[in-house]
Amino acid sequence: MTEEKKNIEVCFSPALFRHFRNPEAIAVIVDILRATSAIVTAFENGVERIIPVGTLEEARALKETGFMVAAERDGLVRDFADFGNSPYNFTRERVAGKQIVYSTTNGTQAIHVARDCIHVVIGAYLNFTALKNWIMRQERDVIFLCAGWKNKFNLEDTLFSGAMARDLIATGTFDTICDSTKASIDLYGQARGDLMKYIDKVAQRSRLRKNKLDDVIGYCHTFDLTRVIPVLRNNHLEALETNPDEL
Amino acid sequence: MTEEKKNIEVCFSPALFRHFRNPEAIAVIVDILRATSAIVTAFENGVERIIPVGTLEEARALKETGFMVAAERDGLVRDFADFGNSPYNFTRERVAGKQIVYSTTNGTQAIHVARDCIHVVIGAYLNFTALKNWIMRQERDVIFLCAGWKNKFNLEDTLFSGAMARDLIATGTFDTICDSTKASIDLYGQARGDLMKYIDKVAQRSRLRKNKLDDVIGYCHTFDLTRVIPVLRNNHLEALETNPDEL
Repeated sequence: MTEEKKNIEVCFSPALFRHFRNPEAIAVIVDILRATSAIVTAFENGVERIIPVGTLEEARALKETGFMVAAERDGLVRDFADFGNSPYNFTRERVAGKQIVYSTTNGTQAIHVARDCIHVVIGAYLNFTALKNWIMRQERDVIFLCAGWKNKFNLEDTLFSGAMARDLIATGTFDTICDSTKASIDLYGQARGDLMKYIDKVAQRSRLRKNKLDDVIGYCHTFDLTRVIPVLRNNHLEALETNPDEL
Repeated sequence: MTEEKKNIEVCFSPALFRHFRNPEAIAVIVDILRATSAIVTAFENGVERIIPVGTLEEARALKETGFMVAAERDGLVRDFADFGNSPYNFTRERVAGKQIVYSTTNGTQAIHVARDCIHVVIGAYLNFTALKNWIMRQERDVIFLCAGWKNKFNLEDTLFSGAMARDLIATGTFDTICDSTKASIDLYGQARGDLMKYIDKVAQRSRLRKNKLDDVIGYCHTFDLTRVIPVLRNNHLEALETNPDEL
């Protein structure tokens, strides 16, 4: 008798997440351009904690109590903030050992809606293989939650989810009955031969280019620059690799 | 100077439609397996009006006032109803000249959320070319609203939207900046060489097969069996072809 395989689902929008009722699943937050790529970079560079908050008001209030703050809307850094949403902001010199409050257009909302899942982790190409190996060890269902754009579908988060789902299913211990997972895998199949060429057509690329913020696109699609896995604990993110025995 | 092109968007779930704020657009309701295919079939067979209602309670109450009722949940016809959701139910003998109240798992909810759009029309492969030609004459933005499955993404509605978007963009008078439209077009590009083979993997095919209701899948993916276009007027659907000058 074969053991039952673990299920993979892809949720294309934070606004749809309440229809995925599986609190025993791992939620992987995906906001490739740029929040989850930036968060992974910050942990690689030694940030101690990141505190995701939904509103700019919360971010501003925490700034006034002494926190460093990353705050962005529609790609642009807010005037009261120390950082925007570019991974290049989060250098070791600026973030090592620090606690940073973080509020973005899409990514922090996605973390918020998934908070009741048994584990909430941050996914990016930058930590792809480390995250994939960790997921394989958990023997749990997985939901990839794409941050999207203002609750709409986006391609870049879908492609990442498809790349992960494809590799996990190839191990033989995961499967899917979910149409969004199958669509993500098929779209990644089209894109993977020349990922940067495919990414050239996504809407977020145009938005970033308009604000001269598209210098990070190649970086955000680079596999395996780090082994760090940020994980949600209570209301903050911390690096899972510092506590390898906990999970 | 070139005239500005009309925009195409694809909305993957009724739960996301409120994020597509364009009441001047045409909304095309898509529920290929099976509601919109059934509705188009009913109009081809001479039904006079279809009254979509959201809840089974409404459907039952209207049944008691003398209406014929089509009511389905999770693929299965409800005991008080005259019809389920199979296009084969809606024969000329049973529906010609009649008014039918209609409530389904996904399709009628999709009609409901789109009701404030300037035109709400019913799309299926069965009326593909007639609908496409009508859309081209309107010179308006278009949103394809996929009924999905319980507010989640489905492949079969996405493929239809991709097929339509591809043809409309090819005319040169439509364009898209929407990632869901681009994804739909690319998925249809993968599927179109052998549409029935691709459809074999969609979740709804498995659901229908389990209940021995998958006899309609080929029919629901047949192009151009009719020229009828059902359109929402006030709270009911009627055939647009009976009033060609109105729009």
